[in-house]
Amino acid sequence: MMLARTRMRRVAAACKKGVRNGMPSTTRTINTQMDDSYPILLSPSLVSLDLPDIWPTNSRPNDFQSTCRCSNEQTAAIIDGKSIAGEIMSRIACQVWRMKESIGRVPGLAVIMVGQRRDSQTYVRNKIKACEETGIKSSMTELHGNCKDDEVVNVLSRFNEDPSIHGILLQLPLPQHLDEEKILDVMSLEKDVDGFHPLNMGNLAMRGRQPLFIPCTPKGCIELLMRSGVEIMGKKAVVIGRSNIVGLPTSLLLQRHHATVSIVHAFTKNPEQITCEADIVVTAAGVPNLIRGNWLKPGAVVIDVGTNPIEDPSCEYGYRLTGDVCYEEAVRVASAVTPVPGGVGPMTIAMLLSNTLDSAKRAYDFT
Amino acid sequence: MMLARTRMRRVAAACKKGVRNGMPSTTRTINTQMDDSYPILLSPSLVSLDLPDIWPTNSRPNDFQSTCRCSNEQTAAIIDGKSIAGEIMSRIACQVWRMKESIGRVPGLAVIMVGQRRDSQTYVRNKIKACEETGIKSSMTELHGNCKDDEVVNVLSRFNEDPSIHGILLQLPLPQHLDEEKILDVMSLEKDVDGFHPLNMGNLAMRGRQPLFIPCTPKGCIELLMRSGVEIMGKKAVVIGRSNIVGLPTSLLLQRHHATVSIVHAFTKNPEQITCEADIVVTAAGVPNLIRGNWLKPGAVVIDVGTNPIEDPSCEYGYRLTGDVCYEEAVRVASAVTPVPGGVGPMTIAMLLSNTLDSAKRAYDFT
Repeated sequence: MMLARTRMRRVAAACKKGVRNGMPSTTRTINTQMDDSYPILLSPSLVSLDLPDIWPTNSRPNDFQSTCRCSNEQTAAIIDGKSIAGEIMSRIACQVWRMKESIGRVPGLAVIMVGQRRDSQTYVRNKIKACEETGIKSSMTELHGNCKDDEVVNVLSRFNEDPSIHGILLQLPLPQHLDEEKILDVMSLEKDVDGFHPLNMGNLAMRGRQPLFIPCTPKGCIELLMRSGVEIMGKKAVVIGRSNIVGLPTSLLLQRHHATVSIVHAFTKNPEQITCEADIVVTAAGVPNLIRGNWLKPGAVVIDVGTNPIEDPSCEYGYRLTGDVCYEEAVRVASAVTPVPGGVGPMTIAMLLSNTLDSAKRAYDFT
Repeated sequence: MMLARTRMRRVAAACKKGVRNGMPSTTRTINTQMDDSYPILLSPSLVSLDLPDIWPTNSRPNDFQSTCRCSNEQTAAIIDGKSIAGEIMSRIACQVWRMKESIGRVPGLAVIMVGQRRDSQTYVRNKIKACEETGIKSSMTELHGNCKDDEVVNVLSRFNEDPSIHGILLQLPLPQHLDEEKILDVMSLEKDVDGFHPLNMGNLAMRGRQPLFIPCTPKGCIELLMRSGVEIMGKKAVVIGRSNIVGLPTSLLLQRHHATVSIVHAFTKNPEQITCEADIVVTAAGVPNLIRGNWLKPGAVVIDVGTNPIEDPSCEYGYRLTGDVCYEEAVRVASAVTPVPGGVGPMTIAMLLSNTLDSAKRAYDFT
């Protein structure tokens, strides 16, 4: 209790001083002011983006201009996701503190983990740590890897009923023997901070509707683009991969922002012919070094969602993480690239906290 | 009652003789056998299409070969939607007759129309007529154009409860003053034969899930492609337009069939640069003659969903329908084209009946 209070005081102090929440910036990022009137996220509400389709009867002139030429030198700016996520988390911490001061409540996130996958354990540990840093209450439930559907459903149902919990995170993937679809369907829509419920996905896809939550990684990708000053409307975007967690919602979200989106997947022939025409490439294929330099248009912006473990005895745990993009080649062609690690990963966590905060604000009617 | 019996006997007789249900074929179509073991639709269940993404580490060789060259002559086969829809409706009539003979029940479709839009009246009339031709029971409710949300909701709720109704069709668009989203959310998912509910759309979008109903026009487009022998997997497909009714679900459905899909819309710059690389073009922009010959790759297959009324004093009603495609130019470039009218339109109705039949089969556990 004392520890929690100390933490909250530290966050509040950091909030007042306007320093970054223990996450120093190492490369250039967009500077944002720390006053409370500034929004946490730059990405606007989805509704306002629902512009009517007014079709021209003739095609429009080609107004694309490459902003960058191929070279042997690094031309790309590095999009520092760790630093941007840190800024966002500072703002979240400020708002959590303000909520606590105003109404005596804080957002609550419940995390359910089934089994002992090492990667899941790492992800969950990072999420819990981020909750602590921002003053969000977290509640962790670990279930045995061979537990039954009903046990997961029971835990989920308990959190559904708990008014101090505003977001529930069921760490995926679940062990094979569990019925993921059936279990996820039990989750309260109002607490589905991952945004994976099909009703949420349908509302993300459909014009004139809006989801309660935007899935975290796609939301983080858009925020990275916007904070890097990348215009999305009217640009050609390619999403590589079509998973429910990343590829699908990212393509839907980019369309919401009026990009012209192509979805490349494993059945795509000559994918490099499609990617090399794109102004924005978001890749979530799960294949190390799939995206070579010659897959990219000079000046393209590349968001690398891939986090692929590669054996490396020189590293502490015997492996290192690498993205889908051949980074050394991409930085010589693209105008901006996210690194792995330190790009999209920290943003996913920041967006999870952002969704949890939004959910708590809705629950308490707090603005 | 006598009339209904006569109609059913006529359908059953036609069913036995194997003739087309009053819809003669005027151009070449795929011949299908009339025995009952042959499926109504060629498009397979969605689940079996959920193949895993296995990514190559290198790009694949270019195996596309144009099957057709540009010329001054018509090169395109005409995809005769009217004839194909007629065949499908014959098969539906057979199954309705079999259901009636076996369990003494028939599928029931409720149609709700609000206001007196002339185009809606035409569409609804055609749907009711198609029900009569196949032996599906139809129930029509017309509401005044200035009725309130609650009145529409009440009618919908009554049909939700009625066990003899297996599909409910709320003819869109509704008058501006009505809350379409709120009203549509009332519709029972089990009777949403249009497939417009966001939960249905989410299940269409997500891997590993399947919707109860596939929206009629997109389902009709896929059926036209499959019956015309067009391979979809691995092909480049462009969908023009991103409406909830056509564009969005068509792009999702083509992805389910493993096409590489690009979605072109009003904010797309130089859309012709994207369409002219596509093997399959599905257009639902609502702009007459938007798609010119030079927008198409030689040998492309073109599905024209556009139904745009053009003033024409020489026509009976003072207007004629035209598609989004400049037909005269397209037939000289494409390998296959759907006409307007007589292409996608009749297929939409056939798919509505197919969905209603499927719903009744589910309700009665009839195979």
